[in-house]
Amino acid sequence: MASTLPLSQRARLMPASPIRKLVPLGDAAKRRGIHVYHLNIGQPDIETPPEFMDAVRAYREKVIAYGHSQGLSVFIESLVRYYGGLGIPLAPKNVFVTTGGSEAITFAMMAVCEPGEEIIVFEPFYTNYNGFAIMGGIRLVPLETRAEDGYHLPSEETIEAAVTPRTRAILICNPNNPTGTVLRPDELAVIRRIALRHGLYVLSDEVYREFVYEGETRSVLSLEGLEQQAVVLDSLSKRYSLCGSRMGCIVSRNEELMGAFLRFGQARLCTATLEQIGSAALVDAGSKYFAPMIDEYRRRRDATYEELMKIPGVVCRKPSGAFYIMARLPVDDADAFAAWMLSDFHDGNETTMIAPGSGFYATPGRGKDEARLAYVLAAEECRRAIEILGRGIEAYPGRIGR
Amino acid sequence: MASTLPLSQRARLMPASPIRKLVPLGDAAKRRGIHVYHLNIGQPDIETPPEFMDAVRAYREKVIAYGHSQGLSVFIESLVRYYGGLGIPLAPKNVFVTTGGSEAITFAMMAVCEPGEEIIVFEPFYTNYNGFAIMGGIRLVPLETRAEDGYHLPSEETIEAAVTPRTRAILICNPNNPTGTVLRPDELAVIRRIALRHGLYVLSDEVYREFVYEGETRSVLSLEGLEQQAVVLDSLSKRYSLCGSRMGCIVSRNEELMGAFLRFGQARLCTATLEQIGSAALVDAGSKYFAPMIDEYRRRRDATYEELMKIPGVVCRKPSGAFYIMARLPVDDADAFAAWMLSDFHDGNETTMIAPGSGFYATPGRGKDEARLAYVLAAEECRRAIEILGRGIEAYPGRIGR
Repeated sequence: MASTLPLSQRARLMPASPIRKLVPLGDAAKRRGIHVYHLNIGQPDIETPPEFMDAVRAYREKVIAYGHSQGLSVFIESLVRYYGGLGIPLAPKNVFVTTGGSEAITFAMMAVCEPGEEIIVFEPFYTNYNGFAIMGGIRLVPLETRAEDGYHLPSEETIEAAVTPRTRAILICNPNNPTGTVLRPDELAVIRRIALRHGLYVLSDEVYREFVYEGETRSVLSLEGLEQQAVVLDSLSKRYSLCGSRMGCIVSRNEELMGAFLRFGQARLCTATLEQIGSAALVDAGSKYFAPMIDEYRRRRDATYEELMKIPGVVCRKPSGAFYIMARLPVDDADAFAAWMLSDFHDGNETTMIAPGSGFYATPGRGKDEARLAYVLAAEECRRAIEILGRGIEAYPGRIGR
Repeated sequence: MASTLPLSQRARLMPASPIRKLVPLGDAAKRRGIHVYHLNIGQPDIETPPEFMDAVRAYREKVIAYGHSQGLSVFIESLVRYYGGLGIPLAPKNVFVTTGGSEAITFAMMAVCEPGEEIIVFEPFYTNYNGFAIMGGIRLVPLETRAEDGYHLPSEETIEAAVTPRTRAILICNPNNPTGTVLRPDELAVIRRIALRHGLYVLSDEVYREFVYEGETRSVLSLEGLEQQAVVLDSLSKRYSLCGSRMGCIVSRNEELMGAFLRFGQARLCTATLEQIGSAALVDAGSKYFAPMIDEYRRRRDATYEELMKIPGVVCRKPSGAFYIMARLPVDDADAFAAWMLSDFHDGNETTMIAPGSGFYATPGRGKDEARLAYVLAAEECRRAIEILGRGIEAYPGRIGR
């Protein structure tokens, strides 16, 4: 009897993290004395600004108690000031604090879709959108973007053709994880028009908002006429190098939707008190850290891209944002190649760990010759990591175009 | 167009917290200068043991980074030692760290049930089970327990009659929130037999494990033959007075199930790093705090119960666990009465806030004359709060049996 106990379909369909599943191979390489350059995960090496721990250490309440389900006022107000500084005037009622961007995505998907309903996404996309959709029984409808086009959006006609009576939202990530692409104003205008014509929500993951190296980007919150439809999914993880604090928020001017988030949030009571205390202090102090951080990441991007362009057969356009480069590699199977780099290859006792592209696609077969490179190391380390990658490709038995 | 944008059914069905919806009335009473005794929410006033903040303050990593999706080793190992101390031998692979008991409940429900499948629960139950079930499209099948019986389980036949081909699990809460009832060994034996006969998971919410004032209770993890079916949903919130840290775990020896939890967990990356660091230190140091804490709560329970028995028309049995008493009150409508206590009544500028019973039932109409009293104040304060409650009932226009 025991062995026949069923798991639910969503538990069985739930994919293992494509980024994290190479971890055992990386650990094994390290045990063999090989230095591994981690370009596989978006964990910044930038120091968390001290305001966070200073505020946490100064916390003197005798009881670590439940906070409000919406979030602590002190944190919500710091976020309102932050968005105000971006030219986005908000009231506290427009901000709902979440346990990381992850919970923001989950709540937003669950609030706008029934099981079986659809959200349009652009492939490649942040791999965990898949997981949250599976938990909610929601169908992601992927539209392809391509390395040759710098992963910019398909045409207005192509996007519109994907809208069905079951479509409830378009989900964008801007600047984009995994591609680094920053949407142009004309692309945002396309999204806006389609959303208005078809009454769709625009769920916009803007966690990399500050990471823009050329030009600028706009939040969907500032698109005219989209006040009831624009929902921003946000996180402090990247901009404050605070991944381990799990602090994020959902922002919307749609009061009915904010009411739904509050009810979802009441079920899980609240988010962590100390993390909110630290985050509030950081948001108020943090903007001074952005400019030097962006300069540093621009150097890393330039170094990574420059080295990448030296590898014969690699296809990519220089991305303008986030801290990722998605590229097509001249290999038969990037999953096998990424594993091989850890198991069978080293260059002077060093190797490079990358995130294979397939995990960022919902469509089977797509992304098999692509990889995401997170330039979260110092520029010279990125340069060396890509040099090793090139040597790996050169030596790889499954190399294409030899 | 904008005003017709639909919310999902689950967003519309999601109930507002029945405990939290009285908060504005309580706040208004305070603004009128009335002291409010909070028996409405399970927020302990006990000080969080200093080991938690000591460990947090001592954290010296430069980057607050992502941790493992399963949880930090240091925290998992502290939990393995904690369960070992309870006579439950576990390996680290049997423990999955969650963002509070809330996430443990969500993951467990999602992993064992398809949308439309059923979990048997006993009414009254922890109100948020409802919310998590709605998010997952899961049907809770409630079986009534009654004040007159001390809210103990119905008969084996009654429970078994509720099992259908769509039943996947029985969900128990032991010691119980909201009733304070501790399951007897014969009741656990009934659950075990039914689970074995029908191949059901037993999801056991044991967050009040230490709060037992007479007799003892057993974890489902120690029930023979249930190794593949027993799943414990746990939280540090109550036993360490750590509600605001959102630290919990799921414990199971079913490896397939643990694999599903890991995949769910990878989607949301990890739980908060600092909170795990603090919690690990606390779990290792914390058991010395239990005995004096339980003595304190026993005094509170006795004071609360004793005063309650002085109110004519109140029905309840003395509960043996948790820090709640569920009681039938001689009022027409406990929701209206609870609101009235805040809006229209005071006794020497003091009043008492209670949690109306209806929020703890899924069956419409049940619990309308019941309330949950959380004895989370000092014994003398509990005594005074119940005295005020009695005077309120006496003065209430909707009093029954006048």
